[in-house]
Amino acid sequence: MALIVQKYGGSSVADAEKIKNVARRIAATRDKGDEVVVVVSAMGDTTDELIQLARQINPRPPERELDLLLSTGEIVSCTLMAMALNYMGYKAVSLTGAQAGIETDTSHSKARILRLEPKRVVRELERGNVVVVAGFQGVTRDMDVTTLGRGGSDTTAVALAAALRAQRCEIYTDVEGVYTADPRIVPEARKLKEIGYEEMLELATLGAKVMHSRAVELGQLYNVPILVASSFTDAPGTMIRGGTAMEVRNRVRGIAHDVNVAKITLVGVPDRPGIAAAVFQPLAKANISVDTIVQNASINNITDLTFTVARSDVDKAMPIVREVAKTIGAKECASDSTLAKVSIVGTGMQGAPGYAATMFRALSEQGINIQLITTSEIRITCIISEDRVKDAVRALHKAFELEKAEL
Amino acid sequence: MALIVQKYGGSSVADAEKIKNVARRIAATRDKGDEVVVVVSAMGDTTDELIQLARQINPRPPERELDLLLSTGEIVSCTLMAMALNYMGYKAVSLTGAQAGIETDTSHSKARILRLEPKRVVRELERGNVVVVAGFQGVTRDMDVTTLGRGGSDTTAVALAAALRAQRCEIYTDVEGVYTADPRIVPEARKLKEIGYEEMLELATLGAKVMHSRAVELGQLYNVPILVASSFTDAPGTMIRGGTAMEVRNRVRGIAHDVNVAKITLVGVPDRPGIAAAVFQPLAKANISVDTIVQNASINNITDLTFTVARSDVDKAMPIVREVAKTIGAKECASDSTLAKVSIVGTGMQGAPGYAATMFRALSEQGINIQLITTSEIRITCIISEDRVKDAVRALHKAFELEKAEL
Repeated sequence: MALIVQKYGGSSVADAEKIKNVARRIAATRDKGDEVVVVVSAMGDTTDELIQLARQINPRPPERELDLLLSTGEIVSCTLMAMALNYMGYKAVSLTGAQAGIETDTSHSKARILRLEPKRVVRELERGNVVVVAGFQGVTRDMDVTTLGRGGSDTTAVALAAALRAQRCEIYTDVEGVYTADPRIVPEARKLKEIGYEEMLELATLGAKVMHSRAVELGQLYNVPILVASSFTDAPGTMIRGGTAMEVRNRVRGIAHDVNVAKITLVGVPDRPGIAAAVFQPLAKANISVDTIVQNASINNITDLTFTVARSDVDKAMPIVREVAKTIGAKECASDSTLAKVSIVGTGMQGAPGYAATMFRALSEQGINIQLITTSEIRITCIISEDRVKDAVRALHKAFELEKAEL
Repeated sequence: MALIVQKYGGSSVADAEKIKNVARRIAATRDKGDEVVVVVSAMGDTTDELIQLARQINPRPPERELDLLLSTGEIVSCTLMAMALNYMGYKAVSLTGAQAGIETDTSHSKARILRLEPKRVVRELERGNVVVVAGFQGVTRDMDVTTLGRGGSDTTAVALAAALRAQRCEIYTDVEGVYTADPRIVPEARKLKEIGYEEMLELATLGAKVMHSRAVELGQLYNVPILVASSFTDAPGTMIRGGTAMEVRNRVRGIAHDVNVAKITLVGVPDRPGIAAAVFQPLAKANISVDTIVQNASINNITDLTFTVARSDVDKAMPIVREVAKTIGAKECASDSTLAKVSIVGTGMQGAPGYAATMFRALSEQGINIQLITTSEIRITCIISEDRVKDAVRALHKAFELEKAEL
C-alpha cells in the first residue's frame, strides 16, 4: 500500500460534473489499495472573479485581506470534492491549509512554506479517509491566512508529498505530460516518459507551461518523484525524477521557446569598473529580472551593453535604464520587443560541444539570425527574431531527431 | 470612547455598492471616536447558492464538509468589508470565527459557542483597527470549522459584545426596529423605542422576524443592550434591554401573530396515566416541537387530546400520531392546518386579568372564534382561524391603543 498525493488544477474541477469526474479518478486510485491525499485548486476562474470583486471595492486591496478572500476559492473546491467522494461511498475529509499544518512566512500573496506538520493529515489517513487539502494556501504562526503565489497548488502538493514521504506526487492538468517541443508548433513532438528535475526546470523556465518551476525545485530538494499527466484522459504522463536519467542519457531532451523576451541595449558606455552595478542594481530594486547579458569588446574604452528582460517588464525597465544612461554617460539606449528565445535542453550539454554546432547550423540553414547566445550546464539558448521562432523550434526538433522514440 | 459591536445581515452587504454603503456607516461610528467590531453575514443569497452547489454533488452532504463550505460565504464578505474601509482610509482587519476566538461544540450546522477568547480582536482594536468578524461560524477544539445555525450571525455579534464587554450590540437589518404589530397589517403600528428581553423573546418566537431568539437570550444572559435598526436609513431603532422597563411598564407592548400553526386532535382517548407520555415522547424523538396542549375534561374516562405543532411539521407528525392512536386505543385522530396564533405581549400579564378580558372581547366583537388559549407570564395567545388573523391583529392593536405614543 503506497501513499500518493494527487493534485488537480482549476480547469479539472471547474464545475460539479468535472468534480465528480475527478472524484471517480481518485476513487480508482483508492480501489487499488493506495492511500490518497488530494490537493485541489479553486474552481475554474474563481480566483480571478474574487480579485475582480475585491477591485470593485478597493482598487488596491490590502494583501492580507486579499489572501484571506482568495483562500475561500480552494476551500469551496476541496469541500465539494470531499462531498463527491462521500457520495460515491468513499470516506473523505477536506482540510484547509491551516488544518493541514502548512505554516508559511508572512509574505502575503507570495508566501513561502516554513514548516509542514501534517499531523492532522496523518490522523485522517489512519482513519481511512481520502484527505482533500485546499491548495495555494497556508497560515502564519499568528494564524493569518496566506497564499503561496503562482504555482501555489503545485507547491502545496509537492510539499505534502515530501512531508508525508509519499511514493510520488501526481500533478493532473490539461496537458498530457512534457513534450519534446510544443505540439501546437511541432506535430511530431513526442511525450517524454521521464525527465530529470534540472531538465524540467529549464523547460519550465523557458516557457513549457506544464508546471511551475518552484514546485519542481521543491521536488528536487526532497527527491519527490512527480508525475505530470492529464486529468481528462488515461494516457500515461511524464515522470519527473532524479537519479539514473542524468548519468545514462546524454542527449537533447526537448526544445523550449519563450516569446516573452525583450532586449535592451545601452550604446556607447564608458568601459570602467562599476558600470554593470550602476545598471543592474536599480533594475533589481524594481524587481525586474535581467536574463542574458552581453558586453561587446571595448574599443577606445567605449562599449555596448546588451541584456534581455521579460517583455512585460520593458515599460517598467526603460525609464530606469534611461536615468542610468544619463548618470554613466552612455550615448543612447534602445529596446527591442520583437524577440524570442529558443533553447535546446538536455543533460551533459557542456561536455559535448557538438550540440551547439548542430544547433547553430540548423538555425543558419533556415536563414535565422542569432542575436545573442547563452548557455548553462544543461541548456543552450539563442535569442532570435520572434517571427522566426516557430521555424526555429521545428528545425531544431528535426536536427536533434526528437521525433524518434528513446532507447 | 465606547466599544460598539455592529452586525450587518446578508441583504445589507448583497453587492459591492451595498458593502461600500455599510462601510460608510461604520466609518461614521468610528469618526465619533468609538471602537468598532463589525460582524457580517454572507452576501445576499450566497449561503443558499453554496448549499445548492453542494447538493448538485451530494444530495446529503456530510455536515462537517457543508459547514466548512458555508463558512467561506462570511469570509468573503468580511474581507471585502475590511477592504472597503481600508479604501476609505480607515484601518481595518478581517477575522474568521476561528481567528476571533469563537470556540464551539462539534454539533455541525447548529453549533453552540462554548468559549469566546477574543485576544486577537482586542489586539487588533488596540492597533487602531476596525475589526470585521465573519459571522455564523466558529471552530471546535480540533480546529474544525462549524456553523452556528439559524440566527448565527446575530449570535456571533451578541457573543462578541458580551465577551468584549461592549457598550452595546447594534443589529442592522432590513427593518427599522420592533413594531407594536406587523406594519403591513396594521398601518398605524408604532416602532417601539425600547423593549425588554423577555418581551422581545415572545415577539420573536411568535413570528416578529426581526432577530433570532437565540441571540436575544444570549443578550439577556450577559445583559448586553441590543439595538435593532435599519442598515438603509438613519431612523432610530429599538433598544432591547433589561432593567427598568420591566418594573415601570405594565401594559401590552405588541401584537404578534404566526400562521405556521397546525392543530392535531386525538379523539376518544382512554384517560389513564401515561397517555401524554405515550403521545409526546415519540414526537419529541422525531424533533417535533409541540406547543399548546389542551385536554378536555374526561367523561366516562374518555377524553380528547388537542395540541399544536408548526404547520411545516404536520406531515412528519401525523404518521407518528396515528401509530400512537392505535397503541393507546384512541378512536380517531385529525389535523387542521388552517389555523394561526395571535398574541398580546407585555410584562405583568399574569398579575392583571383585565388584559385577557379585553383581548377576548375584542376578538368576539369581530366574530372571531377562539379555538385554544395559552398564557405565559408576559403573553396571552389565542389560536384562531387563519383567514381571520389580520382582522384579529388590527382589532387587538386598536383595543390596547398601541397606536398611541408611550409615556
